[in-house]
Amino acid sequence: MPVNLTAPDAASLLPVAGVELGTARAGIRKPGRRDLLVVRLAEGTQVAGVFTRNRFCAAPVVVSREHLAASQGQMRALVVNTGVANAGTGAEGQRNAQQVCQAVAAELGVPADTVLPMSTGVILEHLPVERIAAGVPDAVADLAPTHWVEAAEAIMTTDTLPKAVSRRVKLPGGEVVMTGISKGAGMIRPNMATMLGMIATDARIAPDLLQTWVRRMADASFNRITVDGDTSTNDTFLLLSTGQGAVSIARDDDPGAAELLQALVETAVQLAQSIVRDGEGATKFVTIQVEGAGNDGEAAAVAYAIAHSPLVKTAFFASDPNLGRILAAIGYAGIDDLDADRLEVWLDDVRVASQGGRDPEYREEDGQRVLKQAEFTVRVRLDRGTVSTTVWTCDLSHDYVTINADYRS
Amino acid sequence: MPVNLTAPDAASLLPVAGVELGTARAGIRKPGRRDLLVVRLAEGTQVAGVFTRNRFCAAPVVVSREHLAASQGQMRALVVNTGVANAGTGAEGQRNAQQVCQAVAAELGVPADTVLPMSTGVILEHLPVERIAAGVPDAVADLAPTHWVEAAEAIMTTDTLPKAVSRRVKLPGGEVVMTGISKGAGMIRPNMATMLGMIATDARIAPDLLQTWVRRMADASFNRITVDGDTSTNDTFLLLSTGQGAVSIARDDDPGAAELLQALVETAVQLAQSIVRDGEGATKFVTIQVEGAGNDGEAAAVAYAIAHSPLVKTAFFASDPNLGRILAAIGYAGIDDLDADRLEVWLDDVRVASQGGRDPEYREEDGQRVLKQAEFTVRVRLDRGTVSTTVWTCDLSHDYVTINADYRS
Repeated sequence: MPVNLTAPDAASLLPVAGVELGTARAGIRKPGRRDLLVVRLAEGTQVAGVFTRNRFCAAPVVVSREHLAASQGQMRALVVNTGVANAGTGAEGQRNAQQVCQAVAAELGVPADTVLPMSTGVILEHLPVERIAAGVPDAVADLAPTHWVEAAEAIMTTDTLPKAVSRRVKLPGGEVVMTGISKGAGMIRPNMATMLGMIATDARIAPDLLQTWVRRMADASFNRITVDGDTSTNDTFLLLSTGQGAVSIARDDDPGAAELLQALVETAVQLAQSIVRDGEGATKFVTIQVEGAGNDGEAAAVAYAIAHSPLVKTAFFASDPNLGRILAAIGYAGIDDLDADRLEVWLDDVRVASQGGRDPEYREEDGQRVLKQAEFTVRVRLDRGTVSTTVWTCDLSHDYVTINADYRS
Repeated sequence: MPVNLTAPDAASLLPVAGVELGTARAGIRKPGRRDLLVVRLAEGTQVAGVFTRNRFCAAPVVVSREHLAASQGQMRALVVNTGVANAGTGAEGQRNAQQVCQAVAAELGVPADTVLPMSTGVILEHLPVERIAAGVPDAVADLAPTHWVEAAEAIMTTDTLPKAVSRRVKLPGGEVVMTGISKGAGMIRPNMATMLGMIATDARIAPDLLQTWVRRMADASFNRITVDGDTSTNDTFLLLSTGQGAVSIARDDDPGAAELLQALVETAVQLAQSIVRDGEGATKFVTIQVEGAGNDGEAAAVAYAIAHSPLVKTAFFASDPNLGRILAAIGYAGIDDLDADRLEVWLDDVRVASQGGRDPEYREEDGQRVLKQAEFTVRVRLDRGTVSTTVWTCDLSHDYVTINADYRS
């Protein structure tokens, strides 16, 4: 059951001038489900992306990188399928991804290297290229600026809900619209996640800036979520700037640039958090805040030690304020000179640990009250410096095991 | 259900001259269960240990290190309790551990700093020192060289079976006997595990050598097992040399030294593997072998990436040869210049991956046949060098979640 997440209301998702979306039921893995998405982008659209760091990166990731480089980011279409990830498929996988791009290019009348492919689903199986190509005309016939919810549905795997967010900001130069979708529920951790995501905006953002911003957005959002600690082979996050709106940003210090980036980051954070809220088997949405770290590395190490610990996550599931497991995770995070006596830990507003152990004023029922909520924050103060970080995660439940033991069957 | 593990037969556990074991029901956490162990060691017994690297190391670990240093390893007793780990308990926890040592010292008529304390159980709770002290006379009255099974029972937490092993080796200087016990089922990973373990031998082993050997034994056994990736606060592994037997070893190149170390390592491996076989919720015992690595670090990184992946472990549970998850884990193990095309992966004798993807000759039913067994090996060949490593782990099942969501209740 997703934690405080509902299906997006189609009426709340704003069209972005220059972006049309069409879906089809191509029968890629399961008959009758919406499993193919084509996005047509107006001429002049600039795209920047960040991709998985997994060394087994999937064929569509390789091809997307090539096409972005070949076309200098000036893309005309995206094609996304669910069901088969086209990962661990070698040279044949890359040829298949190229063929899918060619099918879309032919149908839309654009060059094949202006098409970006994305795939998600099971690994080590080949794309059913013929069925996908056969579905492309249906998806193209379906193209419309309003089909964001259907697009979000067409990229789901073990997601229980489509994920889409819109935002409108007023800047000195005029109004900007941004709408994004994402998918992912398991195999989620930095960097990045079993995650496909894209945010389109009608603002015109200079190509160099676009690349810088997409990285900053990912670092503040998709690179801070973890469900199970597994990094997928296919993670892709794209930022699309159609330039069809009133606002144009060339540099970081342009009027409105900071506000626009802020809105884009917030949109990315909302999409990223949606993935955790819909994490496989999730019953709790947990924010891990680490403060007072000496540097980014140790802040992240402590946050992820807590967020990845199966013992901590099962305790969250049980609403059990099992502080020992949290302290043990902090203790093995790899900070050799950590002074446990200076550590403080809070569950929301309840201080549970201080001076190397249980806080003298802490009462178990207060911790339990916090953990019984669907959302809470674990805050750790290291007292070693001034660096902070935040990570979002979920609990580990019976349903996680059920979902992942049954996924392929 | 433990995987190919049965309770030890008391008759198979050999007394070690100089070691007597006594247990009691002290009511530490649950009434009526055997929860306290006292081990009396003959004068002249030399002890060496390795301890958790968790920065939140428990009070008994701190005290044991102090006592080993103060007495130069010449110990007269061990006292072990289950139920409460005495971790995250600050200065009071250390005073409590000292008081338990004093109670044992008084009863046995030995100095308190020749007593080594060990605790396992829940963290952040104080030891019930009075109940433990009250149980000490019972445990001392129970002392006998034959009580190894009872000793193994008295240190269990979520273990479903006691773990004990004996071995006898004939060396040029005579016969050596060794008997060991261990406990641990969850919070198991290097370095080391929620693990208490000890092996006693009647051979006389020089103090310096003893310390070197206990480290080598741990590195070959307890530091190669992982159940859930969590490193506990209390891990302790002790090697006890009573010197009451015929064999005396002063240096690594003494006659029989290599054979003795080999037998000690095998005993430690068997005790360590018992912990994985009895891993929380385990239904499969899995050996991960990595070959052809460029160095120890990358061999271990790949082995543990596979062994810790919740997605891989749930696939093991489902007997699902989901190679994609294994390849993805290898891909995110952090080897930046890994050439996925040169990788090969086997499930037992079935080659499942080669040339960056599924092996052309691999048939899914062959992989499934392997994974349906209670024990199998995942072998990864990196083709980067000549270094190998082996790690033992188990699957991730519904019962893991059940056990860890319910442990404290």
